[in-house]
Amino acid sequence: MDEAKLTIARNFSPKPVGTESVPLEDAYNRILAEDVIAPLDVPPFDRSTVDGYAVKAEDTFGADENHPIALTLCGRVRVGEPPNVTIERGATAETVTGAPLPEGADAVVMFEDTVHRESTVLVHTAVSRGDNVMKAGSDIYKGETVLKKELRLTAYEIGVLAALGVTDAKVYKRPKVAISSTGAEVIEPGKSLGHGKIYDINAHALSGAVIECGGEPINLGIVEDENQKMRTALKQAFSVADLVITSGGVSVGPTDIIPKILDTLGKPGVIVYGIAIKPGKPTTVAVIDGTPVFSLPGNPTSALLIFQLLVRPVIVSMAGRRGERPRTVKAISATRMFAARGRRTFVTVHLAKDKAGRRVAAQVPLGLSGAITTLSKADGYIEIHESQQFIDAKEEVTVHLLKPTFASDEGE
Amino acid sequence: MDEAKLTIARNFSPKPVGTESVPLEDAYNRILAEDVIAPLDVPPFDRSTVDGYAVKAEDTFGADENHPIALTLCGRVRVGEPPNVTIERGATAETVTGAPLPEGADAVVMFEDTVHRESTVLVHTAVSRGDNVMKAGSDIYKGETVLKKELRLTAYEIGVLAALGVTDAKVYKRPKVAISSTGAEVIEPGKSLGHGKIYDINAHALSGAVIECGGEPINLGIVEDENQKMRTALKQAFSVADLVITSGGVSVGPTDIIPKILDTLGKPGVIVYGIAIKPGKPTTVAVIDGTPVFSLPGNPTSALLIFQLLVRPVIVSMAGRRGERPRTVKAISATRMFAARGRRTFVTVHLAKDKAGRRVAAQVPLGLSGAITTLSKADGYIEIHESQQFIDAKEEVTVHLLKPTFASDEGE
Repeated sequence: MDEAKLTIARNFSPKPVGTESVPLEDAYNRILAEDVIAPLDVPPFDRSTVDGYAVKAEDTFGADENHPIALTLCGRVRVGEPPNVTIERGATAETVTGAPLPEGADAVVMFEDTVHRESTVLVHTAVSRGDNVMKAGSDIYKGETVLKKELRLTAYEIGVLAALGVTDAKVYKRPKVAISSTGAEVIEPGKSLGHGKIYDINAHALSGAVIECGGEPINLGIVEDENQKMRTALKQAFSVADLVITSGGVSVGPTDIIPKILDTLGKPGVIVYGIAIKPGKPTTVAVIDGTPVFSLPGNPTSALLIFQLLVRPVIVSMAGRRGERPRTVKAISATRMFAARGRRTFVTVHLAKDKAGRRVAAQVPLGLSGAITTLSKADGYIEIHESQQFIDAKEEVTVHLLKPTFASDEGE
Repeated sequence: MDEAKLTIARNFSPKPVGTESVPLEDAYNRILAEDVIAPLDVPPFDRSTVDGYAVKAEDTFGADENHPIALTLCGRVRVGEPPNVTIERGATAETVTGAPLPEGADAVVMFEDTVHRESTVLVHTAVSRGDNVMKAGSDIYKGETVLKKELRLTAYEIGVLAALGVTDAKVYKRPKVAISSTGAEVIEPGKSLGHGKIYDINAHALSGAVIECGGEPINLGIVEDENQKMRTALKQAFSVADLVITSGGVSVGPTDIIPKILDTLGKPGVIVYGIAIKPGKPTTVAVIDGTPVFSLPGNPTSALLIFQLLVRPVIVSMAGRRGERPRTVKAISATRMFAARGRRTFVTVHLAKDKAGRRVAAQVPLGLSGAITTLSKADGYIEIHESQQFIDAKEEVTVHLLKPTFASDEGE
């Protein structure tokens, strides 16, 4: 397994596949492809944060409940309009929350602290310079790097972009991932099922897995396990995709043609032919003129687990989600779990809490030949090194989480 | 705050807005609207899990390395085809992984355990009934409730649906949420910014927040703070949306017209007019002939925080994500945090670890009038009850998480 990973890393270095501009309404959950430098101050001008009177602070010094100071009302400032008054000594203008501070003013007195009589405003509270004013640039200052490259855009970052007047975000392109299934027994869901046939699971489940890690799946459907058809399908895949996934057709059976075809399609060709792991032994990896190809086993559990182990990290990097760490939690093994002799073994587990509140990992049997329900029941997997015979009951283990974490999965 | 929540609950009971069928390729991350009952066994027939020979197990009893048992080769079973042989006593047929078990056979002997000589197969290992066979229905049995209503569909559940031959999933519709911003000072990002104007943040940030909780935002843009235009915009919102959000125009200023208009548009009209909270005091809630309307403050931090507190739980329920619990973590308060007198106070915080590895919540100042950067810097908020004066430094607090959890945020 370690050798396979090294070989893949030596032959293909996953990089973002490009950048694109998307309007803010489509930017949610995308990955920023550049640092965003503020082209303006936010707010762009000194704003009143209350309804009241714009003043020179020094004019209010000494004012209190019993000794109001009288100022001359010389106008009114409106929200969304340039002020048409200038505040001289002893003067004031009515203003409202959000309105720009008029020239000459440096503070705002709240309505509640004033009494207004015709053209005179009695101020009952002293204010300091800047009181009830949000200064220009106090939220974001012009020239500031306000959002960093590789950040994932949530509602708040979209808000920051909008505040800057930005209409489009420069984000990483989603890598295109071509997916096909192979095997004389698989047919498309929806068709009627003759004896000996099963519905294709892998292309559909893998499409979901590709979306989850930031890729754009291109489902090429079922390709017959026949030389010319497979060759045509693979060529088509290379023409549209940044990464190719096939599943099925790489068992030890007599119809194992994919690796042979791959070797004729480009350089270096197949770089990993089988891995000493369980499940997933027949996994084949190729690089064809710069495009990685992962040929996964036909059985769904193996295919999806190998996807998580080998393919997901590559797609994540190609999607610009470089900072993403593997998601793991610590748990206590519920029972002894055995490794397959001489192979890195991945045991699917379900997480629960014991009476003492400790997190416990209980094995979800893989079932014969990879039942699809195994993975829908499992929360994650445990890795047992090929040098180990087993993990003992009650041993502390690291569980690699298999599913995206949704809000409902957390909470303490 | 408690009263506001009760009043809202009494006047509007959020329910899923409907269901729709989506093809599997669009089903990722949608919420299942029905229990899925398996219409067939998976696998649909007894399958060989290895390449080898289909046999009657009893014919192999007593076979070992030194005492092979000879069986007569009577045919070959192919993957994806109905078997055209029946296994009688003393007979066998060649088979491969995934092929249906022929009639009469009840086990498969692996190739490695046989020697093949013309029409005779020498079996060197005894097998038991069911060995190397995946029984029909052993993964999913016909009639089983295999996926439960309200489950969120990940790659694995999509795989289960595909296994059943299902092409479309019945999922909850996304509630449509109309969003508008109000205020003479706000203009659309992209336009040039006159003095006194600011770019509209709220409609864009709230759209992202609506997507995050499972809704479909309909951005109606900026509506002028003028009676007839606001009335027209609100009527339009009701005609397209299941829930309406406005922001701005509900301060204590003189141009506060939204609540008055709402009261004329349907029953019961405005049900909450201002809440004793900080921030977000001017929040107004109405129900207009069955459609809830949340009129949030104009300042972005308040608007987005109130969205999390009051609007998000409603949208989540309308999206069928009823089982979703609030996401919270425990932390230690970094400093003393004060409450606003007599108001439920929400303090935005950033999470970090201290030297001892404990999770610490440090206050992110709201800034004057709600800087948008506050929330992009904050991980969550702490609630201080109106009966409390402050939370002390080092006190244990519950932090409500503000952002969707992405893979990169976890790891231990």
